[in-house]
Amino acid sequence: MERVRSVEVAARVGQRVRVVGWLQSVRRLGAISFLVVRDGAGVVQAVADPARLAALGAAQAESVVAVTGEVCAVPQAPHGVELREVALEVISEAAEPPPVQLGKKLANVPLPALLDHAVVANRFPQRRAIFRIGAAAMRGFRAALDAEGFVEIQSPKLVEAATEGGAHVFAVDYFGRPAYLAQSPQLYKQIMVGVFERVYEVGPVFRAEPHDTARHINQYTSLDVELGFITDHFDVMAQLTRVLRGMLAEVAAACAPELALLGARVPELPEAVPHLHFTEALELLAGPLGEAVRAEPDLSPAGERWLGQWARERFASDWLFVTGYPMRKRPFYTHPDPERPEHSRSFDLLFRGTELVTGGQRLHRHASYLAALEARGMSPAPIAAYLEAFRHGMPPHGGFAIGLERFLLQLLDLPNIRLAVLFPRDLTRLSP
Amino acid sequence: MERVRSVEVAARVGQRVRVVGWLQSVRRLGAISFLVVRDGAGVVQAVADPARLAALGAAQAESVVAVTGEVCAVPQAPHGVELREVALEVISEAAEPPPVQLGKKLANVPLPALLDHAVVANRFPQRRAIFRIGAAAMRGFRAALDAEGFVEIQSPKLVEAATEGGAHVFAVDYFGRPAYLAQSPQLYKQIMVGVFERVYEVGPVFRAEPHDTARHINQYTSLDVELGFITDHFDVMAQLTRVLRGMLAEVAAACAPELALLGARVPELPEAVPHLHFTEALELLAGPLGEAVRAEPDLSPAGERWLGQWARERFASDWLFVTGYPMRKRPFYTHPDPERPEHSRSFDLLFRGTELVTGGQRLHRHASYLAALEARGMSPAPIAAYLEAFRHGMPPHGGFAIGLERFLLQLLDLPNIRLAVLFPRDLTRLSP
Repeated sequence: MERVRSVEVAARVGQRVRVVGWLQSVRRLGAISFLVVRDGAGVVQAVADPARLAALGAAQAESVVAVTGEVCAVPQAPHGVELREVALEVISEAAEPPPVQLGKKLANVPLPALLDHAVVANRFPQRRAIFRIGAAAMRGFRAALDAEGFVEIQSPKLVEAATEGGAHVFAVDYFGRPAYLAQSPQLYKQIMVGVFERVYEVGPVFRAEPHDTARHINQYTSLDVELGFITDHFDVMAQLTRVLRGMLAEVAAACAPELALLGARVPELPEAVPHLHFTEALELLAGPLGEAVRAEPDLSPAGERWLGQWARERFASDWLFVTGYPMRKRPFYTHPDPERPEHSRSFDLLFRGTELVTGGQRLHRHASYLAALEARGMSPAPIAAYLEAFRHGMPPHGGFAIGLERFLLQLLDLPNIRLAVLFPRDLTRLSP
Repeated sequence: MERVRSVEVAARVGQRVRVVGWLQSVRRLGAISFLVVRDGAGVVQAVADPARLAALGAAQAESVVAVTGEVCAVPQAPHGVELREVALEVISEAAEPPPVQLGKKLANVPLPALLDHAVVANRFPQRRAIFRIGAAAMRGFRAALDAEGFVEIQSPKLVEAATEGGAHVFAVDYFGRPAYLAQSPQLYKQIMVGVFERVYEVGPVFRAEPHDTARHINQYTSLDVELGFITDHFDVMAQLTRVLRGMLAEVAAACAPELALLGARVPELPEAVPHLHFTEALELLAGPLGEAVRAEPDLSPAGERWLGQWARERFASDWLFVTGYPMRKRPFYTHPDPERPEHSRSFDLLFRGTELVTGGQRLHRHASYLAALEARGMSPAPIAAYLEAFRHGMPPHGGFAIGLERFLLQLLDLPNIRLAVLFPRDLTRLSP
């Protein structure tokens, strides 16, 4: 008999269907048992008496099974149906119980157990929901950019020199020569503006930061965008807003059940996201956080939270751009504000009071790069190839990068970024 | 004045427009000069007399310029138009000529020069065409799989043990512990079949093979697919055929000018790609290549070429599946053919007589893995996490991987795979 997917069963009341998937749980209630079978799409409940249940033999939860049965309308069952008069068949037997019980609430499973046994624990309905939302976000990201003529690129992950400064890179033995894992596609996406004007990349980046926090991982997925022929960073902010709108729209359209399962909702994104200059932000913060903040070169987490609340109250917005961060806290390729050269044409996008995206305009003249490197005491030699692009005509350009896992962390209000990664890599974890 | 993109100029005959882009070439013909300006989309020709040309100053080819002029119909010009009565403005000056002349034929530029100066040489129209076709192929790949309910995943690139056997891995210093760059997402995509049934990944893979050939690179982009609940490898071959159809359709739909520029065309893909068993292939080859081939465990390049020609003549197909390769030449996770256990449920897809894709059914029972590892003298310990998935219920499954650059190499009949990579990594090349 042809297989029916779990989500299609509700449309087959009165028919006999065959569902295949994983035996998520068996609840024995006296004379009958309730089985929950999960496939890639969802779950189906089945009812069996002991004689029929005997076909399972010693098969434990998570065995792969086929359940053939009659579809009956049962309002209190998942999707309002259950299978009765079932015939059970074990396709692939699990001989022992799963290392974590998938019927449990995810929040009740300790994080180390979840991560140690991720190969099975990723089957948790809530885990699956997070990853499906991540996949939808990537689809929305690409669709928004494809529609505007951006070209997808793939940059090298093995590089000769650290992209974003010398620390926190993983060293690789490249046929006996030293190499590093790329910390970002920053330099390559800029170079590629010289080729296609508008490019994006979705790929892994590697940060050897020895931090053990709920917000740090050492490999993450970076959604990188760079575009040429801009006027200033406000063009980049407008582009980011359109991209986020595409991501949120795809999540909302494709993942309603997943959002419901996680108790999350897709936030409103205003037509024009409010923005304020870094110096204005400090003015605002001097009241609640004290005059000393005026001397700070960056916003503190407390400052960001306060501004997030302020944007919520003032503009009814979960989103706030802060522009014009001091040049000294930004990387060498940052474009200064010609009218206030100590401030940059950069921005952070705060979402509910936490930084989600960083971006800005970059330098585009060769001479500006040489001056910027000299001012920072950096040698141009390790990035000679990158600088070659600027010797041969580069337009004003800028871009941004969205960390996919950070996006999920904040969108879904997860307690730990590791929950947004299939198989996280951190200070102590290289497996599974 | 608002910018007009090069490809939109032809629709503006009689109007004055502003085009911005790179000054690709200046040809001086006595009293007038012909300029070619290139933007992300294409090129536009402009005509200027010496007085107007003076605005360029010392700006060399590849300077970023704005050309404002009247659009005139000129049949022999690119897109049938040229700009006259122009005003020129230098936006970003290139002070020296480009390291490779972009007006040249790509084939006339030596490969080392092309690769050493890739940051500029990627601007070559033919190079851009190759990468645009690659981006279209990725779009087609994802669209075909999204439409069938596959979930996109991102797997770790830093791993504790070599995926495909111990040799040819890059070693990484992971916070003082030894780690390796993943040679493929093979084990992770199989694990994820246990979560979503159907998954795909587009990402970099790393092979430390010390080969210096026109077909080898050490980082490439792998388009990986894995699907559960299959009957055998023929389900995987059918899935691959649908995916390739999607890739080719998107390339044909989106890249007609690029294909024309490269003199390539998208091949027909038969509704059902012809297939033959490995043993049948050897039977056929014994005639032309000699009886000794019957003892071979694999097909030689000469054998593949002969079979490609045969498929062309016999089925009018550029494509041919060869199935049932001997188990001893396939990796440990390969599923044997139960009726001929020395042969596998695997396949290679030949395209015009060269292997393009490898795939097959995998083992799915825990006991089968233990037996397969023992038979090969491999320890289960380094892949304990992977094996855990099979202890807890995995369905019959299989998959395949398409190397994006290999696909472009063969589709476009390129002389060297490095031409299909933005910034290739090979035995000697770590930069740009």
